[in-house]
Amino acid sequence: MISAAGAVTLPQLQAGLEERLEAVQGEIGRIVTADLDLITQVNAHLLRMQGKLFRPTLLLLVNEATGAFDRRAPQLAAVVELIHLATLVHDDSVDHSVLRRGMPTVNSLFSHQVSVIMGDYLYSRAVIELIRLGDLEPLQVLARVTNEMTIGEMRQLLAHDGLRYTEADYDQLIRSKTASLLSGAAEVGALRAAPAVRSAMARFGENLGMAFQIVDDLLDFTEPESVTGKPSGLDLKEHKITLPLIHALPRMSDPQRQQVARLMTTPEPSGEQIATVVSGVSEAGGLAYARRRAQEFAARAEAELDVLPSSSARETLRASLTYVLDRKR
Amino acid sequence: MISAAGAVTLPQLQAGLEERLEAVQGEIGRIVTADLDLITQVNAHLLRMQGKLFRPTLLLLVNEATGAFDRRAPQLAAVVELIHLATLVHDDSVDHSVLRRGMPTVNSLFSHQVSVIMGDYLYSRAVIELIRLGDLEPLQVLARVTNEMTIGEMRQLLAHDGLRYTEADYDQLIRSKTASLLSGAAEVGALRAAPAVRSAMARFGENLGMAFQIVDDLLDFTEPESVTGKPSGLDLKEHKITLPLIHALPRMSDPQRQQVARLMTTPEPSGEQIATVVSGVSEAGGLAYARRRAQEFAARAEAELDVLPSSSARETLRASLTYVLDRKR
Repeated sequence: MISAAGAVTLPQLQAGLEERLEAVQGEIGRIVTADLDLITQVNAHLLRMQGKLFRPTLLLLVNEATGAFDRRAPQLAAVVELIHLATLVHDDSVDHSVLRRGMPTVNSLFSHQVSVIMGDYLYSRAVIELIRLGDLEPLQVLARVTNEMTIGEMRQLLAHDGLRYTEADYDQLIRSKTASLLSGAAEVGALRAAPAVRSAMARFGENLGMAFQIVDDLLDFTEPESVTGKPSGLDLKEHKITLPLIHALPRMSDPQRQQVARLMTTPEPSGEQIATVVSGVSEAGGLAYARRRAQEFAARAEAELDVLPSSSARETLRASLTYVLDRKR
Repeated sequence: MISAAGAVTLPQLQAGLEERLEAVQGEIGRIVTADLDLITQVNAHLLRMQGKLFRPTLLLLVNEATGAFDRRAPQLAAVVELIHLATLVHDDSVDHSVLRRGMPTVNSLFSHQVSVIMGDYLYSRAVIELIRLGDLEPLQVLARVTNEMTIGEMRQLLAHDGLRYTEADYDQLIRSKTASLLSGAAEVGALRAAPAVRSAMARFGENLGMAFQIVDDLLDFTEPESVTGKPSGLDLKEHKITLPLIHALPRMSDPQRQQVARLMTTPEPSGEQIATVVSGVSEAGGLAYARRRAQEFAARAEAELDVLPSSSARETLRASLTYVLDRKR
């Protein structure tokens, strides 16, 4: 049962994987190497601001839990992380973001131009590495996923548009934007397993990814700036419509709804405007509903684990769902 | 002997290929199809502003001339054109270009955001199509080429930097930025041929590509706006250093060199400033030298054709070099 064991940290999930994750880091460094100074500089910055290798961790855990050992796992995990990085670099450029994980983005530190080119560079290096492995299967999964993510990004552009955005639209958006790569990471970890196990792991990753993004969107409503490394209410400030608001809107009073409409037409909403809407969303049950949805997706992910034999890696995958639900950033 | 036969037009090179080029167009349409309205709109615009399929033409001609028929040629040609399109969309976004072939760019008609995402979309669709063909070889060639192009784009950013830019820097830049994809197109047309033929065709495409880009840069000095569809002297206006200027600089008088230096530090150089520098470059022999270099690269490309059996397709490849040297846009 998810969450029964209390808080789970990422280092706990990664216990025992440290050496393999270091190997993944090494692979990333090798794959992105260039003899052009500007690329070396951007690489160094990206590796400094890099996340905590959640996707590689998932891939390695799935590979271990399936019992179908894949010696390419470190390279595959490195490629998944690189695709993730390439996507972040382009996303930050598209969003004109200034900070990511409390550090300057590539577009703010270098330029918009460098970001566009660098994202292309990282992605094409990832593809070259997959080709080097001489197997079309991981390419197939990850090229499909990458294309889905671009469609998700396109949907994201349209998600600014007014208050007619439905929960189905939202699910479709986060499925392509976020869940697809987590699904791909899990599936690629299970390439050597039986087909039924492989698809169960793809679904595990997808449902975990849905929960992951819903929690991310919730944190934007609940966490103060110092913890997320970005201003709380940033989505609202940028007129992005996420699940808490979608659910709350039809349950709000007329004056509250008018406050939302006003915020959505204000180019630079004030902190007060945002705080008011956040309270309204909370009162109308938007936060509680989103949390419930995240738990539902996590439960679906957990059910997929039944296909795996009992092992400590399987229990760590279960714990990763608690981590996703309870994380503060 | 190149150019002996007089002017060559692209429709002449494409005579007899019309049906196959239509098949390529059809493949492009199939590969990019999406059920998201915004993507459909951008696709429609891109297909309207599409070029004259020079790269697919080259691929089909090489495939015919090698005599090693590849039934995948239309799909491969479509993928090469898509990679080209993806690159143009990102380049225009990086350069903030407003027009391309006399039509509004994706970034100007839609937005910078849409351009970045759309380039990623097209490229990942191209990769998916290559995977569908179930063969790692074309993927290998085209992923390498795509990565080289990103490095070329990065070099391009650095090519704005002052007057210490050498001809060797320039060669390296255009080799990665332009010649790489033309080389890839020719090589992919020869995948079914003997290894020696395949590498000769890769070199043919590369040298043709070098000539192609030098002529492009020359046209920026010589052609008035109405013909190129972009303002003449645009590179100078944007402080891009190309071969005519590189060669001319050490041969210019001190006052002329000072005019160049002034232009390079003027954010928005006037038409008069540009005209003065263009004359200076011409007087110092920059245009004649660049033309000679283009001819040299074309001659190297022509020499590679000796590996092929005599055929009309081989002669059309020879004529394509005349086309590249003599084209007015």
